[in-house]
Amino acid sequence: MPLSEFELIARYFRQLGELRQDVVLGVGDDAALLRVPSGCELVAAIDTLIEGVHFPPGSPPASIGHRALAVNLSDLAAMGATPAWALLALTLPRPGENWLQDFARGFGALALEHGIALVGGDTTAGALSITVQVLGFAPQGQAIRRSGAKPGDLLCVSGTPGDAAEGLDLEMHGSSVGADAATAAVTAAAATTATDRLWLRNRFLYPTPRVALGLALRGIGSACIDVSDGLFADAGKLAAASGCAASIDADALPLSAALLSRAGREGAVRRALLGGDDYELCFTVSPDRLGELDSLRDSAGAPAFHRIGQLHAGSGIEARRHGTVMDVAAQGFDHFRRS
Amino acid sequence: MPLSEFELIARYFRQLGELRQDVVLGVGDDAALLRVPSGCELVAAIDTLIEGVHFPPGSPPASIGHRALAVNLSDLAAMGATPAWALLALTLPRPGENWLQDFARGFGALALEHGIALVGGDTTAGALSITVQVLGFAPQGQAIRRSGAKPGDLLCVSGTPGDAAEGLDLEMHGSSVGADAATAAVTAAAATTATDRLWLRNRFLYPTPRVALGLALRGIGSACIDVSDGLFADAGKLAAASGCAASIDADALPLSAALLSRAGREGAVRRALLGGDDYELCFTVSPDRLGELDSLRDSAGAPAFHRIGQLHAGSGIEARRHGTVMDVAAQGFDHFRRS
Repeated sequence: MPLSEFELIARYFRQLGELRQDVVLGVGDDAALLRVPSGCELVAAIDTLIEGVHFPPGSPPASIGHRALAVNLSDLAAMGATPAWALLALTLPRPGENWLQDFARGFGALALEHGIALVGGDTTAGALSITVQVLGFAPQGQAIRRSGAKPGDLLCVSGTPGDAAEGLDLEMHGSSVGADAATAAVTAAAATTATDRLWLRNRFLYPTPRVALGLALRGIGSACIDVSDGLFADAGKLAAASGCAASIDADALPLSAALLSRAGREGAVRRALLGGDDYELCFTVSPDRLGELDSLRDSAGAPAFHRIGQLHAGSGIEARRHGTVMDVAAQGFDHFRRS
Repeated sequence: MPLSEFELIARYFRQLGELRQDVVLGVGDDAALLRVPSGCELVAAIDTLIEGVHFPPGSPPASIGHRALAVNLSDLAAMGATPAWALLALTLPRPGENWLQDFARGFGALALEHGIALVGGDTTAGALSITVQVLGFAPQGQAIRRSGAKPGDLLCVSGTPGDAAEGLDLEMHGSSVGADAATAAVTAAAATTATDRLWLRNRFLYPTPRVALGLALRGIGSACIDVSDGLFADAGKLAAASGCAASIDADALPLSAALLSRAGREGAVRRALLGGDDYELCFTVSPDRLGELDSLRDSAGAPAFHRIGQLHAGSGIEARRHGTVMDVAAQGFDHFRRS
């Protein structure tokens, strides 16, 4: 017998994530009541994941729950905000209990990790789609925007971009379709271990929102964006918002051993530039803040990041490989074009 | 040539609704930055509308935009909150410009009417679905909850419930399927004017969130809920949350002339009790606050409301007609059961 909407909400979503003192009223009324700390600005983001567009049909429900929250946390991370609360609008064809349990487990584990309370939601029947809205805060005037970079600022990225796109490819096809795949893949596939493949797949299925790095960048970073549509496209958006040009040194891109092993160096470079779903932070730092950035890099527990380019006067973005401008399609990941 | 996601957002959603001083940063970055007034609690709600579940395929896009915001404003109204900001997650099969323009017009007009700024969003490709998240505020401790009613409190409802369900029926079938339709509809249909039919359809297509009434009820109402799943079901939820029983006097239900003309009296009563999508407020008031309630009723511009029953010690809900308990299905509108 199918559970009713109310029973569903009660069973899986009434108490998910952290118990927070600043939640005056959580799930179960018409709206949630929340207390924003004084002296702080509220930071709000919303993102939708749709089956067949943002993740392959039949993806593990725990991964879907994790990703739905992670992509939103990544937006807050890019602002240097402290996440606090989430609202979940879940549309699914039918309320299978196992599916819901696993979805809630994935969502709840990441929520707990970041101290977030689920404070509201809506469940409806339809094609599988998840919209999450996250709320957080930042001390007044301290949030990091896309638009703050200046010519001369250094361009950096966290983690190892490109892994998620390769991982998605493994999820969907079980094989690499990297740009220079024809020959490279044959040799690479043999060299790729099962551990590498699992690692790459998990980079797609369970992205790590860089919340701690975003917080650490407050007062240091001049601009920041999260890499969801591909590093090249997103760095281009940061540059455009800041009224600058950007140049990426493709020889300096941090590439994971697993991606290199699987896609070959040229394929890995293209993945890192064009692959989506990384949820790393791409940010800029003024050269006179380099010391602070280096102390950040040296501090225990800070996520790794690398310098990958620089901003200049002008407009547009380019990537250079061995000193030559690469031929990179200017469009990043665009949901309407992909479908 | 299809517009890209970024062009779409820029064209229709970058500046929608009110220009507000408390929006530090709106659409266009990773997240919005907002200023909550000091001494206030943040009030947050989220709701999804799906084509074929919440509105018929081919509904006017302006109505879809209006409803997507209205159903969320209705949640804030039920808390007695002042709406301020909205985020919009829009999923649609393809970005038709005319459709988007009309959708944005419907959404934007209602946003302006309530002084709301659209501050963030996400557009994706998929089956038509709209999730809106609204944020507002209420002075600390003054928001109205579902759970505050006490035995003896009077039960009231705004507007004329049942109209929207009849209007939806007209949208879908062009005919009444009221409970006693067989004979009544024949006589009624002849008497129903084109004006009545248009009015009923508009009650579904363009519901009026009772924001002003919700604000006026702060300090007067003991509990409040918005009527989205049917008056009987939603009054039952209010009673359950308050740990009370509720009794509705079905002879006292406010019924519109259009609904009466179209569905006959018995059909209208059932529509008013069981029909969904009204987005009226169902609220309770302690008898010693009756004076304040009456002054509210007399004040110019206050939306009409009527006393329709009372809360008692105990649990459960009943409706009485001519002194006899009616046989009303206990389940209200439930998306998973409807599909």
